[in-house]
Amino acid sequence: MHVEALGWTPSGTLRILDQTLLPAEERWLEIATRDALVEAIRSLRVRGAPAIGIAAAMGLVAVLRSRVADDRDAFRAAVERLAEEIAEARPTAVNLRWAMDRMRRRARAAEGDAAVAVDAATTGGADAILAALREEAQAIWDEDRAMCRAIAEHGQALMRPGVRVLTHCNTGALATGGIGTALGIVYRAAERGLDPHVWVDETRPLWQGARLTAWELSRAGIRHAVLPDSAAASLMAEGQVDVVLVGADRVARNGDVANKVGTYALAVLARHHGVAFYSVAPSTSFDPACASGSAIRIEHRNRDEVAVPCGIAVAPADSPVHNPAFDVTPAALVTGYVTERGVLHPPFEE
Amino acid sequence: MHVEALGWTPSGTLRILDQTLLPAEERWLEIATRDALVEAIRSLRVRGAPAIGIAAAMGLVAVLRSRVADDRDAFRAAVERLAEEIAEARPTAVNLRWAMDRMRRRARAAEGDAAVAVDAATTGGADAILAALREEAQAIWDEDRAMCRAIAEHGQALMRPGVRVLTHCNTGALATGGIGTALGIVYRAAERGLDPHVWVDETRPLWQGARLTAWELSRAGIRHAVLPDSAAASLMAEGQVDVVLVGADRVARNGDVANKVGTYALAVLARHHGVAFYSVAPSTSFDPACASGSAIRIEHRNRDEVAVPCGIAVAPADSPVHNPAFDVTPAALVTGYVTERGVLHPPFEE
Repeated sequence: MHVEALGWTPSGTLRILDQTLLPAEERWLEIATRDALVEAIRSLRVRGAPAIGIAAAMGLVAVLRSRVADDRDAFRAAVERLAEEIAEARPTAVNLRWAMDRMRRRARAAEGDAAVAVDAATTGGADAILAALREEAQAIWDEDRAMCRAIAEHGQALMRPGVRVLTHCNTGALATGGIGTALGIVYRAAERGLDPHVWVDETRPLWQGARLTAWELSRAGIRHAVLPDSAAASLMAEGQVDVVLVGADRVARNGDVANKVGTYALAVLARHHGVAFYSVAPSTSFDPACASGSAIRIEHRNRDEVAVPCGIAVAPADSPVHNPAFDVTPAALVTGYVTERGVLHPPFEE
Repeated sequence: MHVEALGWTPSGTLRILDQTLLPAEERWLEIATRDALVEAIRSLRVRGAPAIGIAAAMGLVAVLRSRVADDRDAFRAAVERLAEEIAEARPTAVNLRWAMDRMRRRARAAEGDAAVAVDAATTGGADAILAALREEAQAIWDEDRAMCRAIAEHGQALMRPGVRVLTHCNTGALATGGIGTALGIVYRAAERGLDPHVWVDETRPLWQGARLTAWELSRAGIRHAVLPDSAAASLMAEGQVDVVLVGADRVARNGDVANKVGTYALAVLARHHGVAFYSVAPSTSFDPACASGSAIRIEHRNRDEVAVPCGIAVAPADSPVHNPAFDVTPAALVTGYVTERGVLHPPFEE
């Protein structure tokens, strides 16, 4: 029912949907070189924390295919070097670094196996390490798919026939290797025949709601409507929103949530209108090292995202712009946290 | 200090700034024909309730110049016909209809004066009626300028050195014949040397904040920054907003305010953060015939404003769009109403 935005090609290279062209064009890219992979990650052709990690792991395997005739040491050196180069494509993407570290560990383990093997030439050579890495990349993908499914199942406690969900940004199949996080709950509700309706915040400045979430829902045949972010308030006042489901970039130990700018506004509005507000994210988004939201540094992005949308200047060239990428929603405004382990409430145990 | 978006040319035609081209281009149009005037109003080259009424009255005079050689009856018929045609250019614009009705009444009165004159050919002919209409149009403009000034003076009670104002949409010189309503308070504060800073909501879907308010403030040398509408919440949480000043399309008898979509969200957010929220509008925006906000019908506008900004499709072609032009802020969330008569609180006397 949902789109799969990445996969293997029959020849073992990586296939990704170029998200920068959505919704106007659905173009699939085949990626078999380091340069193409780094470019795709850097240019946000693949985006969403879990999806980036999966694409990087599968992409690393795709790139290494051409090195399988190398001797073992040269191949191992290539793994290390490529993993580092790929991780540097987006230095702030935590899942990207995590996936590359995991792939390197697997390569080392495969090499260790080879060292004790009787015939290293056949069992522990480059081809054996590549096979292990392919297995690891597939595992990363499979685990993410299973995690999305588990989140979606737990989230069914919030669904009922005809439920009207309001969401922000994109937390669906395009952001993950599976059915998504917050939007995964909606997909599962649709599978169960509950006929959900989704209010899709357009999500300025980058329109992830209009461009990506609406596109996914349209493809999946799920009822929805796109709205300016500022129109969510009157929808709630009219009683047209049953529950707000948003993702989380990072959850602090006290339950404060950093997520796409606009999330906090929705939390305040939901509280004012007595609407339930859930943060939906895997438990890996919970950061025990972060005591509270005040410890989270908010990235400010470039002015043109706001001032020059679609290449057209809507603000004067000399007007300053305030463009925070994220905001922080205090735990007190969060009804609950839907994770693959169930619906949680703060404070959190490690 | 502020821009004047309309005026007379030396030859007595109408001069307006084409607001559809802002902020990229500052093009002035000279208007001397009915077709040009109707097109300018219909295409929003002139916008803002007071500004439309003023431009229509002055434009009517500009158009009638070419008819001044007509005999009195033909001229009077032209006044009636043109006023009706201009009023129909935007049937929902209350100020437009009001200004045309006022001009017609003045023409009738001028004709009445003529009927009792000794020499109707010189004192009550087309030229005398045209002179009376020019006087009336100038009066409409002057009254609006004075009203803006009076509002701005009363609003100074809310200003202090370095005050940080958050505003939405455009309520400035481009919307009126003077310094504006909500933004007029800021202009006056700047004149007084208070060095205000304005947080400018970009105001999706039509970007009146980014395109028009930021342009005015940039021209006036007033400190400001443009932000996505959804970023106002975190600004308030950070204590960076002292007061919210917004306009009002219509104020009901109980104090409920209909205004640009997103106004209501700001009112809820302001209340949550203990920030003062003022509606700023002339007393003519108060509608005693309207008991409460629930009686106000909200216009829904076309999908392309949201889905196809700047001519680029950001949402799938088959995704429905929810695009209300206005929302209603209940009186309970309004700290006060700044008018030319002072700062008011509901319920209102007629």
